[in-house]
Amino acid sequence: MNSEIKIVLVNTTHSGNIGGVARAMKNMGLSDLVLVEPKVFPSEEATARAAGANDVLANASVVATLSDAIADCELVFGTSARERHIPWPIMDPREMASIISTGKSKDSGKKIAVVFGREDRGLTNEELHLCQHHVCIPSVEGFSSLNIASAVQVIAYEIRMASLCVEQVEEPLQWGTKWDAPMANQEQLEMLFDHLEQTVLKTGFLDPQKPRQLMTRVRRLIMRALPDSIEVNILRGILTSVDKSIASNVKSSKELGE
Amino acid sequence: MNSEIKIVLVNTTHSGNIGGVARAMKNMGLSDLVLVEPKVFPSEEATARAAGANDVLANASVVATLSDAIADCELVFGTSARERHIPWPIMDPREMASIISTGKSKDSGKKIAVVFGREDRGLTNEELHLCQHHVCIPSVEGFSSLNIASAVQVIAYEIRMASLCVEQVEEPLQWGTKWDAPMANQEQLEMLFDHLEQTVLKTGFLDPQKPRQLMTRVRRLIMRALPDSIEVNILRGILTSVDKSIASNVKSSKELGE
Repeated sequence: MNSEIKIVLVNTTHSGNIGGVARAMKNMGLSDLVLVEPKVFPSEEATARAAGANDVLANASVVATLSDAIADCELVFGTSARERHIPWPIMDPREMASIISTGKSKDSGKKIAVVFGREDRGLTNEELHLCQHHVCIPSVEGFSSLNIASAVQVIAYEIRMASLCVEQVEEPLQWGTKWDAPMANQEQLEMLFDHLEQTVLKTGFLDPQKPRQLMTRVRRLIMRALPDSIEVNILRGILTSVDKSIASNVKSSKELGE
Repeated sequence: MNSEIKIVLVNTTHSGNIGGVARAMKNMGLSDLVLVEPKVFPSEEATARAAGANDVLANASVVATLSDAIADCELVFGTSARERHIPWPIMDPREMASIISTGKSKDSGKKIAVVFGREDRGLTNEELHLCQHHVCIPSVEGFSSLNIASAVQVIAYEIRMASLCVEQVEEPLQWGTKWDAPMANQEQLEMLFDHLEQTVLKTGFLDPQKPRQLMTRVRRLIMRALPDSIEVNILRGILTSVDKSIASNVKSSKELGE
């Protein structure tokens, strides 16, 4: 069983689908299911459609937010069918599986999540922004929405195929190369983005009335580089040094009675 | 729509599954469904699970035997989960898709069938012997039986991937995706790094006596994300706003005779 890869379902509406997902996971050797605010769970329908994958359902955890679900993950893939306003790198399930199996072989113990949205409208933009990579199953235009258990089946199948055969395709550079620091996790990244937001509010570059897409674009840039912990620490250090420079300004002005 | 490839279901028991199959097919651009003695068809359950793939259901044909279903086909793949008594060459869905897409390009008009058995026990040996090739989705031992709609989804997905002829070019991911701004050029990047260096010298974070690997690490992080022009402009904008916040500090101090 592959316990480093978790499947995360956000706000699943039809409880039968949760069972279908559990079955699809177990077929492909995945066991870690996380449900973010499901409408109903557990349920008889889920158990029926699980068709024997009761252990996956029994061990599933239920959490309140997507952030909770992925807090311990270093690599988060969000599934997406729609074109988005700001382009974000999109890969197909095979590329995703290649990254996962390469990452795992290089650094086992790395936690990975693949996130699936609501049956009717997928993940929100905010939720997708929590994911480093966006994965799209190449369905036809005009009828692009897969049943969620089918979508999990395709993703889980690709993960299994990659783990079975593996003539690894293009590795992401930071993993192809021996790296000198662990990847930053989701929590470190969110703290970085929060910090940056506070600092650019202070400098006046971010206007809360007109945020434009400032933070989204910076987030997209940083996330697709898959930063390591040292890099995040450096960026935090730069921000702290800026904060201090500004604070000493305010302080000295105040002391002088301005 | 791909009308040369038909999906054949033998003795399907749960009518909802027929709808799930129709949806999975339409998602992947397949339209030709043949039902060999289904238990119930048509049905409300099938229509509900088809989730809009009504045209696939409406055009489905119902026949009495597998031989009838595949009479006009030159290439027939039978899906199989179990090990059989007599060994038979078994391929995975990717090899199957490769054969199909090669065959199609060589001789278009060739009719192809992929055959799926009963939910509980698949195809009989006699039925499998009507198929030139046997395909097995590589599920885990001990829990190998996929839901039939999920199995069709995996097969149809592989056929579509092959037809899209995914020679995933060596492009960086963000270039594989349609992007909304040109990539930053080397000159813009160097100006960004110069600017950053000046700013972190001012904030005191970069100590010219002990530069460590600060600039190298930031450069590596930014460069591997392959930033676009808008992103570089945003980073420059942030630095300029920081510069101004610090300058106003120095200026007000000087004006006050410090």
